[in-house]
Amino acid sequence: MIAVLKAGTNSEQRESLIKWFESMGLSTYVSVGEYHTIIGLIGDTSKVDVGLLESLSIIESVKRITEPYKKANRKFHEEATVVDVGGVKIGGGNFQIIAGPCSVETRDQILGIAESVRASGASILRGGAFKPRTSPYDFQGLHAEGIELMLEAKKHTGLPIISEIMNLNHLELFMDVDIVQIGARNMQNFDLLKAVGRTNKPVLLKRGLANTLKELLMSAEYIMAEGNENVILCERGIRTFENHTRNTLDLSAVPALHELTHLPVVVDPSHATGISRFVESMAAAAAAAGADGLMIEVHNDPPRALSDGAQSVTPEQFGVIAAKVRKVREAMGL
Amino acid sequence: MIAVLKAGTNSEQRESLIKWFESMGLSTYVSVGEYHTIIGLIGDTSKVDVGLLESLSIIESVKRITEPYKKANRKFHEEATVVDVGGVKIGGGNFQIIAGPCSVETRDQILGIAESVRASGASILRGGAFKPRTSPYDFQGLHAEGIELMLEAKKHTGLPIISEIMNLNHLELFMDVDIVQIGARNMQNFDLLKAVGRTNKPVLLKRGLANTLKELLMSAEYIMAEGNENVILCERGIRTFENHTRNTLDLSAVPALHELTHLPVVVDPSHATGISRFVESMAAAAAAAGADGLMIEVHNDPPRALSDGAQSVTPEQFGVIAAKVRKVREAMGL
Amino acid sequence: MIAVLKAGTNSEQRESLIKWFESMGLSTYVSVGEYHTIIGLIGDTSKVDVGLLESLSIIESVKRITEPYKKANRKFHEEATVVDVGGVKIGGGNFQIIAGPCSVETRDQILGIAESVRASGASILRGGAFKPRTSPYDFQGLHAEGIELMLEAKKHTGLPIISEIMNLNHLELFMDVDIVQIGARNMQNFDLLKAVGRTNKPVLLKRGLANTLKELLMSAEYIMAEGNENVILCERGIRTFENHTRNTLDLSAVPALHELTHLPVVVDPSHATGISRFVESMAAAAAAAGADGLMIEVHNDPPRALSDGAQSVTPEQFGVIAAKVRKVREAMGL
Amino acid sequence: MIAVLKAGTNSEQRESLIKWFESMGLSTYVSVGEYHTIIGLIGDTSKVDVGLLESLSIIESVKRITEPYKKANRKFHEEATVVDVGGVKIGGGNFQIIAGPCSVETRDQILGIAESVRASGASILRGGAFKPRTSPYDFQGLHAEGIELMLEAKKHTGLPIISEIMNLNHLELFMDVDIVQIGARNMQNFDLLKAVGRTNKPVLLKRGLANTLKELLMSAEYIMAEGNENVILCERGIRTFENHTRNTLDLSAVPALHELTHLPVVVDPSHATGISRFVESMAAAAAAAGADGLMIEVHNDPPRALSDGAQSVTPEQFGVIAAKVRKVREAMGL
Repeated sequence: MIAVLKAGTNSEQRESLIKWFESMGLSTYVSVGEYHTIIGLIGDTSKVDVGLLESLSIIESVKRITEPYKKANRKFHEEATVVDVGGVKIGGGNFQIIAGPCSVETRDQILGIAESVRASGASILRGGAFKPRTSPYDFQGLHAEGIELMLEAKKHTGLPIISEIMNLNHLELFMDVDIVQIGARNMQNFDLLKAVGRTNKPVLLKRGLANTLKELLMSAEYIMAEGNENVILCERGIRTFENHTRNTLDLSAVPALHELTHLPVVVDPSHATGISRFVESMAAAAAAAGADGLMIEVHNDPPRALSDGAQSVTPEQFGVIAAKVRKVREAMGL
Repeated sequence: MIAVLKAGTNSEQRESLIKWFESMGLSTYVSVGEYHTIIGLIGDTSKVDVGLLESLSIIESVKRITEPYKKANRKFHEEATVVDVGGVKIGGGNFQIIAGPCSVETRDQILGIAESVRASGASILRGGAFKPRTSPYDFQGLHAEGIELMLEAKKHTGLPIISEIMNLNHLELFMDVDIVQIGARNMQNFDLLKAVGRTNKPVLLKRGLANTLKELLMSAEYIMAEGNENVILCERGIRTFENHTRNTLDLSAVPALHELTHLPVVVDPSHATGISRFVESMAAAAAAAGADGLMIEVHNDPPRALSDGAQSVTPEQFGVIAAKVRKVREAMGL
Repeated sequence: MIAVLKAGTNSEQRESLIKWFESMGLSTYVSVGEYHTIIGLIGDTSKVDVGLLESLSIIESVKRITEPYKKANRKFHEEATVVDVGGVKIGGGNFQIIAGPCSVETRDQILGIAESVRASGASILRGGAFKPRTSPYDFQGLHAEGIELMLEAKKHTGLPIISEIMNLNHLELFMDVDIVQIGARNMQNFDLLKAVGRTNKPVLLKRGLANTLKELLMSAEYIMAEGNENVILCERGIRTFENHTRNTLDLSAVPALHELTHLPVVVDPSHATGISRFVESMAAAAAAAGADGLMIEVHNDPPRALSDGAQSVTPEQFGVIAAKVRKVREAMGL
Repeated sequence: MIAVLKAGTNSEQRESLIKWFESMGLSTYVSVGEYHTIIGLIGDTSKVDVGLLESLSIIESVKRITEPYKKANRKFHEEATVVDVGGVKIGGGNFQIIAGPCSVETRDQILGIAESVRASGASILRGGAFKPRTSPYDFQGLHAEGIELMLEAKKHTGLPIISEIMNLNHLELFMDVDIVQIGARNMQNFDLLKAVGRTNKPVLLKRGLANTLKELLMSAEYIMAEGNENVILCERGIRTFENHTRNTLDLSAVPALHELTHLPVVVDPSHATGISRFVESMAAAAAAAGADGLMIEVHNDPPRALSDGAQSVTPEQFGVIAAKVRKVREAMGL
């Protein structure tokens, strides 16, 4: 960490600041320039509050050199992490498509969709049992029954399953779920992150709708710091001024995350756009950008889906998308 | 709700759509224009999924006329709600200043600050025991001990207290806390909203950093739908492209919320700016804008605060701010 | 256009409003519902000020049904426009790569880059002579001399050329330039738009960094309304809260614009990301998303480029990118 | 400027980088740490391209210590600038209210409004003759005739006048206009900035809707670098995800700009909110925040205004606002 002191700082102020740094166990080195004095801090600066330093009257600005995330940081773990999801591998060159309905609605619905997406190339089944809805009056999911139906679909098709958790008291229900999903709205629900961090279950962590890549990695760090390193990151669109799509898909997050972290990165074009007509082009674009996987909403009868029908593709459309995605990966030499 | 059909829609498609609406218990009326056909929907449209409708191939666009929040809506509850916090009233012309440290750190600290902010005009004491921190390696609060110290400060000073809850399993600890705070990161942690909704405790609900006013009101609705109507809204800055301040304080939210809802609205200039030097001007501006209260971070020794020292003012500075705020309210005839 | 009246509006107010609409030459139809009255407006509503209507005390809300752009609108012009750039076609299935340096610097530089990008598959040469720089102290381009050097490169290689115009008084200098570029900062410099609209030269119009797709199309409409329909749109990243890249590339703009308009859409991954390492993946993603072309910055010696070196790829890297882009288009069946 | 080198950089790479810096006329100092090497650059670093440096493979990150604006920078010009507008002073404790219609429409309209706003406390008259409209089909202003009418209003009332310029070829028309306004959409129309910079006329420079404070100051620098130091800055709302108001008023820009620059700062609550009902509270808030002035749209008959009627207040409402603003300034001791 580097602290730049304002012009006109006297040596007494400087000494007092240096003593304070040393009281935190940090070594310092000082370069006095014509206009500014720079103090470099060596040691574990992860506990230094940048905002506080910047607020001191003698400080011009502060720059953190080392990112405050450790376990998720590619600098300290060069090799790509491969997450094993019930025998299906994701990351490090292994590409997977997660598909299924937004919400589990009925036994027939989930079994039917599971069969058809497996046939078209999905390797993991998604289905929501607990649904975070903006309105308290919207359908909130089948809860425990939904998880039961997902497990039945898993047994029938052999596909590993993923479902979203919203409440740390529900962890037990997810015992046989293969990937626990943390939704965008809970990306900084730290108690929930810690709770899934204390399991050894793969976790798919969605980026919050107004969170930076660094904050996403800090949330991954919450999970990993508890001992669970099976984290999959998911880009699903961010909130911007533009509203022609539900969110703005930030595809450059894919190559950027691959530089910053060793964790696998999947893309959810369904939530990112909110419009089923755009899922094919954005799925293909995500594959071209180097994503390690996709998560796509598929519904047998989108106009009658109980949630997010607007962004669901039919099983037939999913088949076309999956085929194009495979070809794009080949074209890119992936 | 109004649905506009695309040009070229034939009468069969139209009939089929109308039947579908009627199957949801809605009445319809149809206006056929030169270029567009418009279908108006009458009845309880709160369950109609706008996104889904918009995705249908024959639909041009959809417009919701009635807001999907009911209990928080000023249309159905003209009079301003006054929330009673241990005898201190907020809303409907009653203005209160909440002050105190970001985190409770020690007995001496919280008792000292409590005394001094009471003397300068604060009527409610804030202090965090559970702290949502971006990094798992940052100070996370004193937890149960922090709540104990807050209760002791309450006893000493007579000030009602507010503290943030992050985990629904902690509700019992908050039994004697006067206002339960839901932080910005948990604004859409719906299980937590429902849990506090099942108490009758005043809840201060902070706007999420990328949430619209409508989403804030839908989250208030989650609490109110469970039976608890003692909700106080809090504007604390939103995330934008600009980073000269930590967040961008959206002060026009104050008059806008006063139109949309009957609930009281307070402003937190400390988190909004993240810079203690700007707290005075933004506190005064919020008062001029008609806020029902302020929440200001005060610390006896900001450079040594364990969290958010950069945005904390000293008790002396707080006294000056509180005095100016009172004068501005008088100037505005409030 | 639909105007929804507030509950409680009396018939006199309604009549007065209707008369006002009729004074603007509009026909109206009225539907009186239980809670709301809806007035539909038929005729040329492009002159009705939505903001003003919404501000009237008896109006609940207003919805525009017809987009206010006509000539750029796909509804009135189903077939994709193909723009002919000195014999090179773009749009309607014709895909082109524009490549070259950010700024023209020297004769050797521009001739050398022109040769090498042509060899690797570029079909149009870019090069800036007038540079919009945030700081007045930065390199501002070679001006007339830069245009001369571009024309020389055109003669040598046969490639049509594109260069940015910043001042309507410079139009004469661009007489032999094949595409005139309007930069993001000038997207709403309406006098400049009108000036290029009075030529018959192809215009590449870049999306402003905080402009919606509708505003982009309204700016295209400014050019087209003057008689010039040779407009190419360019997505080059928007400004958001995220700063891991210079801007956030909004790739869903590609399929969305293809629905809204018949004009060709190209993508500039160099300005969008600002980081040369990300250009390959974003160029491939843009091709997968269905863009009609790409604009890529290429420099023989990026670290010594006088502007935007950080985002320039070398001619060798460009060759690899162009080859992958072609393969991705094949994979997508484009 | 500080450049942080990546771990693993060898001394040869370091030497080569240092030679390159020296070739730009900069001195360097080097601190070799355990994990990073830091190179400090001393001298005129305003020409160093930060983006380029960051793109080099051996560079971890770069930090600019000195802002790239000089003439607008408070560091080099501590005293607040007072701009003299035809005898009316603004800045350095002098507060002025600019009021008038969005567009000049007729002689009667502008003379009538001018009289009434002068009577209520406005000291400068605004009125648009050239209007930047998103749609080419909207009213574009009276042009030269509009300027003539403004000059007549000036003669009648004695009020100095302000009007917006959109085209550098129109400068002559503005010879007797007291303040030339550069609108938000032209904040980075650099040729226009230079043109007004070559006059000695006061310039009101509006912040672009997606521009940072630093970019605003760089645009001021463009004007000042040409010799014209009479620049007034104007905050008028920025574009964010929130759309309950037309733009989001960023009031913390007022104290922030007062720290960064010596130039006066005015606030335009009319354009910021786009809703006349919110102008009073935001005008009062801006005064409380320490603005040096306000710019408020006033129209005698808002529902019939040819532009921006939605945000215009009546002369009566303006009188109330001006009186409250004065009281708030007194309350703040300003």
